[in-house]
Amino acid sequence: MEAKRSLLAIFLLLSFLSISTAAPTRKTGTRKPCKSMVFYFHDIIYNGHNAKNATSAIVGSPQWGNKTILTGQNHFGDLVVFDDPITLDNNLHSKPVGRAQGFYIYDKKDIFTAWLGFSFVFNSTQHKGSINFAGADPLMNKTRDISVIGGTGDFFMARGVATLMTDAFEGEVYFRLRTDINLFECW
Amino acid sequence: MEAKRSLLAIFLLLSFLSISTAAPTRKTGTRKPCKSMVFYFHDIIYNGHNAKNATSAIVGSPQWGNKTILTGQNHFGDLVVFDDPITLDNNLHSKPVGRAQGFYIYDKKDIFTAWLGFSFVFNSTQHKGSINFAGADPLMNKTRDISVIGGTGDFFMARGVATLMTDAFEGEVYFRLRTDINLFECW
Amino acid sequence: MEAKRSLLAIFLLLSFLSISTAAPTRKTGTRKPCKSMVFYFHDIIYNGHNAKNATSAIVGSPQWGNKTILTGQNHFGDLVVFDDPITLDNNLHSKPVGRAQGFYIYDKKDIFTAWLGFSFVFNSTQHKGSINFAGADPLMNKTRDISVIGGTGDFFMARGVATLMTDAFEGEVYFRLRTDINLFECW
Repeated sequence: MEAKRSLLAIFLLLSFLSISTAAPTRKTGTRKPCKSMVFYFHDIIYNGHNAKNATSAIVGSPQWGNKTILTGQNHFGDLVVFDDPITLDNNLHSKPVGRAQGFYIYDKKDIFTAWLGFSFVFNSTQHKGSINFAGADPLMNKTRDISVIGGTGDFFMARGVATLMTDAFEGEVYFRLRTDINLFECW
Repeated sequence: MEAKRSLLAIFLLLSFLSISTAAPTRKTGTRKPCKSMVFYFHDIIYNGHNAKNATSAIVGSPQWGNKTILTGQNHFGDLVVFDDPITLDNNLHSKPVGRAQGFYIYDKKDIFTAWLGFSFVFNSTQHKGSINFAGADPLMNKTRDISVIGGTGDFFMARGVATLMTDAFEGEVYFRLRTDINLFECW
Repeated sequence: MEAKRSLLAIFLLLSFLSISTAAPTRKTGTRKPCKSMVFYFHDIIYNGHNAKNATSAIVGSPQWGNKTILTGQNHFGDLVVFDDPITLDNNLHSKPVGRAQGFYIYDKKDIFTAWLGFSFVFNSTQHKGSINFAGADPLMNKTRDISVIGGTGDFFMARGVATLMTDAFEGEVYFRLRTDINLFECW
């Protein structure tokens, strides 16, 4: 009799637990992501002659800089606003699946390094919603990790890490970033 | 005897669990917020003539822009710093309950879209502490979701989603945003 | 017999639980941090004469401002980019253990207040990785809390609160911030 009651207690306990721990999918002991995605985005900086194609522009610069040429000293102090197409492969002319929107700001005199605040904004049949990013981007490293600090829509409450890789660049006008997004909190 | 021991085990287990899962209040399976709040904030942009009333100012602009008029092409490239009063209703002249402080940066040529980084700062008997936000704000949409990326004081470690709605605007000098904050992690 | 089976159920339950709750170390009921660290960082603002030593520069300013002197009205509208050395003690000349990189933007006319977006970037034998911060910094308060919104490397997925204290300042060229970092989510 008591044994039966204890079994009942276990089942009640189990059902209680399945509610209280439903919550975000976490695979943390192992650091295995709950969602992984790869995207490319393409940045064409305004240089005074490419207004039609440009997807970004310098909007802040140090005393010694200007707004049509990235400044010397590794662009220290240049603030760039962007609205870049996101593609699934590394082709600038592929159909965009979303837009990367936000800013970067070069913040070091000795080497290329930037600080990024931006979002991936999706509004297609495949993805609706946004992923928000922030972090340091030491451009000269082959891979750089920044934080996924939140998300909305399909990416509601997401957290994780995004690994950036410079996939290509042409002078100081075009660059393409591969972005490997790994979410470790999925709701 | 064994039955009793198993009951004891269950109770020990239960008390252990109540500690290990105490943690943040999460209602995630259902996506029910642990805290909901509605605020309004009011932005009056400096236009060269309203220094006394202005709560925000253009501090960065693209090569073709300036700092007393929002730029053409949907203000692309304009960076605006703000310190806006927060009210509980939609009246600019209601007693402020806090300040919305940070920046927005228009980041698209085709339509009005901005990227936001800001905080709600409270220091009243009702609320002490701050809520930090980041995300994309496609202004032309009736509602836009951004992320609550953290909080301090009464909003310690908060995470969630804030829904912005343009409640009113007058030309390019005044706008009012309704902000529905829904926290899904409360500590 | 049934008693034994119920004991077995408990053990299965226990081992199941130890997996599902492995996840991030949280000590939340008590708000006890899972990791605490203290650092200092040192900001030397470019003033037109100190290019060699300066670690930061004004890159955005309101219409009435310029880029070699912080603006009147409590610097409202000045956007400053920085790459500051981080030290373990309050001596500017101590060996840096990392760099504080990002921006602050003065956002209030009446008193000194700024909004911060930055990272601590470490690449030493002691720490590798980055900690990302965002939040309001009401400078005149003795202590100010901002959010740790994410981390990478050794600080993978970190969340928490950082308390800033102005440890020293010299005119409008140098200041030193003590930063007490308390993480409440450690992976």
